[in-house]
Amino acid sequence: MKTPPHAPLGVFDSGVGGLTVLAALRALLPAEHFLYVGDTARVPYGSKPLEMVRAFAAEICALLLSRGVKGIVVACNTASAAALPGLAAELPVPVWGVIAPGVQAALRRAPGGRIGVLGTAGTIRTGAYQRPLEAAGCRVWARPCPLFVPIVEEGVSDTVIARLVAEHYLKDAPALDAAILGCTHYPALKGILSEVLPGTALLDSAEETARVVAHDLALLGLANPNAAPGTVRHLVTGDLPSYAHTARLLGGPEGALERVVLGAPPVAQP
Amino acid sequence: MKTPPHAPLGVFDSGVGGLTVLAALRALLPAEHFLYVGDTARVPYGSKPLEMVRAFAAEICALLLSRGVKGIVVACNTASAAALPGLAAELPVPVWGVIAPGVQAALRRAPGGRIGVLGTAGTIRTGAYQRPLEAAGCRVWARPCPLFVPIVEEGVSDTVIARLVAEHYLKDAPALDAAILGCTHYPALKGILSEVLPGTALLDSAEETARVVAHDLALLGLANPNAAPGTVRHLVTGDLPSYAHTARLLGGPEGALERVVLGAPPVAQP
Repeated sequence: MKTPPHAPLGVFDSGVGGLTVLAALRALLPAEHFLYVGDTARVPYGSKPLEMVRAFAAEICALLLSRGVKGIVVACNTASAAALPGLAAELPVPVWGVIAPGVQAALRRAPGGRIGVLGTAGTIRTGAYQRPLEAAGCRVWARPCPLFVPIVEEGVSDTVIARLVAEHYLKDAPALDAAILGCTHYPALKGILSEVLPGTALLDSAEETARVVAHDLALLGLANPNAAPGTVRHLVTGDLPSYAHTARLLGGPEGALERVVLGAPPVAQP
Repeated sequence: MKTPPHAPLGVFDSGVGGLTVLAALRALLPAEHFLYVGDTARVPYGSKPLEMVRAFAAEICALLLSRGVKGIVVACNTASAAALPGLAAELPVPVWGVIAPGVQAALRRAPGGRIGVLGTAGTIRTGAYQRPLEAAGCRVWARPCPLFVPIVEEGVSDTVIARLVAEHYLKDAPALDAAILGCTHYPALKGILSEVLPGTALLDSAEETARVVAHDLALLGLANPNAAPGTVRHLVTGDLPSYAHTARLLGGPEGALERVVLGAPPVAQP
């Protein structure tokens, strides 16, 4: 049974980072309805064992399917690296990750070139970016940057702190033709990264992913034909006020907020 | 039934931070055996809803009791703030947190004075430090410092990055007689904090807590009378190599490492 085109698209991330992907999707697909899951109770994914991230992703997809989504965008690099293509093979709706679009953008921009990959420890550890880039003849320099996410979430992206942290991570980088911002928070650091890596094209997976999703929805006949603007609903596993506060640093959240419970039911506190 | 004095002491934290408390305990109580739980799969606690932190703490205490501990040290400020005195009232063994010792140290050092409290968002939000200090006539200035933990875990505690972040958090601080380092990671930043807060006594909950635990064990007849040095075993919920790597930044880990599973059993990945 095919889900109808007016059904919402599911989007999920370990927290608020995926809101950059959601914003890119909404810009290209203004008629679509979106259900966004922010798993802030279990953030960060980047430092957790990969089998745990896979379990989280499977659980969130089950939630989104129970809400009738017509497709799912894994708007989290770590979850994309850990859980795709497993999810894509098993779920009854199309599933998109953010890794493949980032790789394709790099190959278009600098075929056979020297590519940098910046991401969480988990994403870099999987080699999910490095493998296809190297298979396509690129030389890859990969660097986990664990401080970037808390720096964005603390609202100090435009300060000398962020600049020094970027220099710390990138001081050994060779000259790069392009660098993939392999974590949904990193576009908030684009200004500083372009200063630290002059002459390097910075590739934002969010925009690339939105382009691929828009293309595929049209191809599959799943695009919402309505002219009216679509809605957004946020399903959040952690604290709602904290979510709203941090989301504002990434330009969100618009739409309704709803608390959802995932994982072990909380043990009753005596 | 009273647990025998040769039984181990349980110590737990959301991750590696509690190793500073463990080290202080071992220094004062060299004959004791220790079981240390590092809940690295669910770190950080500081940004999570308090009822979730309470559920985690109850689950870890159940694990430690099943391993026969004679007492439990909650070596995590957020868990101490969220879960005590509930745990202390319900568990069949003595339970110590890190908050009360920190408060007592501040009151000894600067009775009725101006006290700073630095901690995670969760710890500060509970008011667990502020209430007893204010009740004792102190003026309290409290500041959540979310970037301090990732800075310590990234090994950049002694750099200009840490210095700038400390200045960022403390730029509005009034003149303080003493400041409580209300998170187990923060003692790693003592050098920089003493530069940014000259003339302020920096109080380390780890040492204060160890003193209280040693005193109470003797009082309760629970101190291990053996002359031989005690052992340490680490029960870790996340990735073992990551734990060992990060623990080295805090002077650990000595002793055996064991992976334990807490929370929802991982969903089988199709």
